[in-house]
Amino acid sequence: MITISELQKKLIKHKLDACIITRGNMFLGEDTLPEENLLCRLTGFSGSAGKLIIFRKRACLLVDGRYDIQARSQVDSKVVEVFCTRDSLGSWIRHNIENSCRFAYNPWCHSIAEVDFWKRALTDHEFIEMPSDFPAIQPSSREAEIFELKERFAGISADEKISYLTHFCAENKLDAYFVSECDNVSWLLNLRSNLLKNTPVLRAFALTSADGGISLFVNDFAKLETELDNWRGKTIGLSFNRCPKKIQTLLKERRIRCANIADPITDWKAVKNPIEIAGFKSAHQRDGVALCHFLHWLDANWQTADELGIVAKLHEFRTHGENYYSESFATIAGFASNGAVVHYQPTEQTNRKLESGSLLLLDSGAQYFDGTTDITRTLAIGKPTPEMIDSYTEVLKAHIAAASALLPPDTPGLVPDTLARAVLWHFGKDYAHGTGHGVGHFLNVHEGPQSLSLKSLAPLKAGMITSIEPGYYKENAYGIRIENLYLLEETSINNTPMLKFTPLTMVPFDRRLINKALLSPAEIDWVNAYHQKVLTALSGFLPAEENAWLQAAAAPL
Amino acid sequence: MITISELQKKLIKHKLDACIITRGNMFLGEDTLPEENLLCRLTGFSGSAGKLIIFRKRACLLVDGRYDIQARSQVDSKVVEVFCTRDSLGSWIRHNIENSCRFAYNPWCHSIAEVDFWKRALTDHEFIEMPSDFPAIQPSSREAEIFELKERFAGISADEKISYLTHFCAENKLDAYFVSECDNVSWLLNLRSNLLKNTPVLRAFALTSADGGISLFVNDFAKLETELDNWRGKTIGLSFNRCPKKIQTLLKERRIRCANIADPITDWKAVKNPIEIAGFKSAHQRDGVALCHFLHWLDANWQTADELGIVAKLHEFRTHGENYYSESFATIAGFASNGAVVHYQPTEQTNRKLESGSLLLLDSGAQYFDGTTDITRTLAIGKPTPEMIDSYTEVLKAHIAAASALLPPDTPGLVPDTLARAVLWHFGKDYAHGTGHGVGHFLNVHEGPQSLSLKSLAPLKAGMITSIEPGYYKENAYGIRIENLYLLEETSINNTPMLKFTPLTMVPFDRRLINKALLSPAEIDWVNAYHQKVLTALSGFLPAEENAWLQAAAAPL
Repeated sequence: MITISELQKKLIKHKLDACIITRGNMFLGEDTLPEENLLCRLTGFSGSAGKLIIFRKRACLLVDGRYDIQARSQVDSKVVEVFCTRDSLGSWIRHNIENSCRFAYNPWCHSIAEVDFWKRALTDHEFIEMPSDFPAIQPSSREAEIFELKERFAGISADEKISYLTHFCAENKLDAYFVSECDNVSWLLNLRSNLLKNTPVLRAFALTSADGGISLFVNDFAKLETELDNWRGKTIGLSFNRCPKKIQTLLKERRIRCANIADPITDWKAVKNPIEIAGFKSAHQRDGVALCHFLHWLDANWQTADELGIVAKLHEFRTHGENYYSESFATIAGFASNGAVVHYQPTEQTNRKLESGSLLLLDSGAQYFDGTTDITRTLAIGKPTPEMIDSYTEVLKAHIAAASALLPPDTPGLVPDTLARAVLWHFGKDYAHGTGHGVGHFLNVHEGPQSLSLKSLAPLKAGMITSIEPGYYKENAYGIRIENLYLLEETSINNTPMLKFTPLTMVPFDRRLINKALLSPAEIDWVNAYHQKVLTALSGFLPAEENAWLQAAAAPL
Repeated sequence: MITISELQKKLIKHKLDACIITRGNMFLGEDTLPEENLLCRLTGFSGSAGKLIIFRKRACLLVDGRYDIQARSQVDSKVVEVFCTRDSLGSWIRHNIENSCRFAYNPWCHSIAEVDFWKRALTDHEFIEMPSDFPAIQPSSREAEIFELKERFAGISADEKISYLTHFCAENKLDAYFVSECDNVSWLLNLRSNLLKNTPVLRAFALTSADGGISLFVNDFAKLETELDNWRGKTIGLSFNRCPKKIQTLLKERRIRCANIADPITDWKAVKNPIEIAGFKSAHQRDGVALCHFLHWLDANWQTADELGIVAKLHEFRTHGENYYSESFATIAGFASNGAVVHYQPTEQTNRKLESGSLLLLDSGAQYFDGTTDITRTLAIGKPTPEMIDSYTEVLKAHIAAASALLPPDTPGLVPDTLARAVLWHFGKDYAHGTGHGVGHFLNVHEGPQSLSLKSLAPLKAGMITSIEPGYYKENAYGIRIENLYLLEETSINNTPMLKFTPLTMVPFDRRLINKALLSPAEIDWVNAYHQKVLTALSGFLPAEENAWLQAAAAPL
C-alpha cells in the first residue's frame, strides 16, 4: 500500500512540487468504496469530504468545519497538517501557497470547471496530469447487482425521462448529451445498484443521443473510448461543473465539440413527482414508527446502552419496515463529548457507554424503495443540565425559524440558512456546517442542486425536499442537532404565491430538553402543531404501550 | 439634440445592430449633471439607474424594481420598451437577444470587467467601441470650486492616506496605482467639489506612484494621456471592476502592464475613523432636530400642505444646522399613491395636496461637513385606515428584524437583507429594492462596498455605516418605507465577537401607525429603547412646545 513518503519520492522523480489527492473516483460523489478512498488510506481521515495536497516536505489536509475535530484526531500530526477552511482547493492554494508550484492532479477526479479555474486563476502555478506511476483510480471491479426501480416507486418510466432529454438535445442543437453524474444516470434509467452500502446509485456514465439511443458505461471504460470514436465532428453537451476533466480530453482528442450545458436532469430530479412525494411521505411514516420503537426502547434501556449498541438497535427496528433497503448513511450516535464531533461515527475504540446527565446526538436515515430518510434527534440521557436544555431550546428556535419561513418561489437556499443561523447568533452561537441539504429519491441522501447554506444561490422550488438541521457543538462537552426533512410546497398568502416547508419526518422532539420559557407563543404553536401531526401519522401503527409513550412524548407544551 | 431615431440611422450607416446608452460618464457614479444624462435626454426617464439599448427598430430600457412604475410613466411606450429586471446588461442580452448582434458601446462608460464579460460570455454577439460620430461623453466643462475637507472633519490627513497607498504599491510590487473611482480620489486627498448639487465628490482620476507622487486628472484628459506616456513598460494597478475600459486601452497602447487589483481605498473609506464617526453622530443629532421641527410643523399644517411645499419646508429647517452643506439627494415626498412610486420626486405636474386618510412617504437627507444623513419616515396624514396601520407595523417589524440582528464579523450584507424581507414574506409582502446601502462621509449617500441586498457578498465590518430601509408599496394606493442609518459596532455575546447595529438616525417613528398588538414584547422593547435614545439625543435642543411634541411622539408604546 502506497504511503505519503513514497508519493513524495515520486514528486522528486517527476520534478513535481505537489500532487492533489481526492477522496473518491470519477463519479465525484460522496459515498465511495474503501478501496477508492486513497485519501483515507494515506492519512487515516475517514470523513466524507476533504482534499489532500502532498508537497515534497509536507502534506496538507483541507477539511470543512464539520470535520475539523475529527481530522485532527485521525491523522498523524507529524506527517499531515490539517487546515479547516471554507475555501475551495483552488482558493486555498491561491491564499496559502506563495512559491510557484507544479501540481499533479488526477483528471478523473476533478471537474472540467475546477481544472480550468486553476489554470485560469492560479497562473503562478502549473497543473499537469498525474504521471502513470501514481496511484490510478479505476472503476471498481467488485461484483454488484444492477436492478430496476419499479415505476410504481419511480413514478415516471425511463422511456418518458429519456424523451425529456432527447427534446433537450433538439432544443439545444446537440447531437448527444453526456450524463456524467451517476445519480442523474440512475434517475434517467430508473436503474440502481447495490455496489455501495448506503447509496443505491448506479455508478455509470450515459451518452444519450438526440434520437433517443443510450449508451451506458458502467465500468468498461475502453468501451467508452471506442463509442466516442463514433462521434467525431459532432456536438455533445456536458456539464463542465460536474464532468471529469478526462472526459473533455477524450472528446477533444476526437474533435468532438464540447458544449458546456448544465445537466437538466439535476433540476428535473430535484423536483419530486407525485408518486415520489407519496412514497417519501409513506417511507417517513414507517421511519417514524421505527424511531418511536427505538426511543421507547432507549427510555427503558439507556442505563445499559452504549453507542454501538444504539446503532445496532436502531438498525434492527428499521429493517422491519416495508420497502426497507439499507441505511442511507452510517449512523452517527455521539454521546456527550462525542456528540460535539459533528460527523462522529462510533468505533470499537471510541464507543462510549451512556450515563446520566448528558445528551445523545443520533443522526441516522434509511433507504426505502419509495423514499429516503434522514433524521437527527438529540436526546436527554438521565438528567441533563439547565445549560444543555437552554442550548437545545435555542437550536430548536433556529430550526423553527427556517421551518416556519414563507419564501417566494425560487428564493436561494442561503435565505433559510440565514434565518436559522441568525437566531443562534443572538446567543453567540453558530454551527460550522450548512443548515440543510437536498435529498434524492432512493439515491443520494445528500443531493442538490438545492442546499440551505450561506453560499447557495440555487433556487428553491415546490416539490424539492431539503433537510433543516441547525446545531450547536460544545467541544469536549456535548453536541446538539435537530434535523427534519421537509417538502417544499406551494401556498398563497394574501394572493401572493409562496413556498412553505411541510414536514416529512414524523418523530417527536425531546420535550425534556425544551425550556418553554425561551419560546415565543408562535414557536410553541409550531412545536405543538408538529407534534399533533406526528401523533396523527404514527399513533395507529404502534402497540398500546408505545402509543402511550408517544402520547406523552408529543403532548402539547 | 440627438434623438433615438437619429441614432438608429447611425446604426445602419455603421452596420451596427445596436448601441448601448448609459446614464452618466466616466466616473460611473450615480449622481450626474443633466447634460451628461444622455439616457434621460433620449427617453425622458430620470431615475438614478438604467441602461438603454437602441436597436435599429426598437429601444429597450432596462431598469430595476425601484424604477419600474416611474420608467413606464416617463417614457413614450411607442418608442421605448421598459424591462424591469434584476439582470445585469450582459445577462439581459444573453437571456433576451437571440440573433447575433453587433453592439456599440462607449468605452468610458463601462468597466473593464463588464466589457470583458460581454466579450467572454456573449460570444454570439460582437461588441465594438462607438464610432466617433456617436454622442461623446466628455468631462463636464462647468465651472466648479474644489475645496479641502478640513482634517478636523476628515480625521486623517491626505499625507497619511497617501502613505497607506504607497505602502500598498510596495506590497503589491506596483509602480503606481490608478484610482479610477472619484469618491476614492476625494477621500484620499481630502478634496471635495461643488460641481454636483447633492454629492460633494471631486470627479477626478488620480495616479499615485509608489514613491508618493500624485497626478490628479480633473477634466483635462489630454494631460492624462501625456502623463501616461511616462509610464511605458511599468506596472500600474487598477480595479477592472471599477475602471473604464478606455483607461485599459490607453495603458495597453503604451505597453503599461495592467494589474487587476481592487482599489484598497474602497475598504479603507468604508470603515469610518473615530473622527468621522463622531461627526456622523453629531450630524445626525442636528438632522434629527431639523426633522422634529419639520414634523411638529407638519402636524399643525398638513391640511394646507402639498408635496413641493413639504420638500421646501424640510429643506429650510435643515439649512439652519451647523456644518450644513446641501441635501444629499433630491427629497422624495410621495403622498398616497405617489408614495408607491419607490423613487418618486414631486414635480409641478405631479404635486399633490395632502388630505386626511393616507400616508406621506418622506425620504430625505443632507450633506454636513462632518457627516451625511439619509432618513425615511412614513407619516399618518389625518386618519389612515387600519390596513395602512397594519402594513406600516409589518414594515416596522421587518426593520427591527434587521436592526436588532447580531452578526458575526464579516457576515455578507445579504444576511440582514434576508432577515428583514423574511418578516414581510409572512404577510405575502416584499419590496423591489435592497434593504440598505452604505453611506459615504460627506461623499456619496450611496457608497459601498457594503450593501444590504440579496446578492451582496460584501462583508460587514465594525465602523461601517448602512441604512436599513424595508418598505411596502401598494400601487395606486400608498407607499411605506422606514429608514434609519446605523453604525456597525463590535459587541460580545457569551465571549463571541459580534457586530450590532447602533442607530445614528434620531427621529421618532410615527406611533399613530403602529398596531402594538402585532409586535412581540421584544419588538416593543426595541422601539421603546430607540425612542428613549431619540429623546436623550434631541430633547435638550428643542424649544418647549416642540419638546412636548417630541415627548409624546417618542413616548413608550
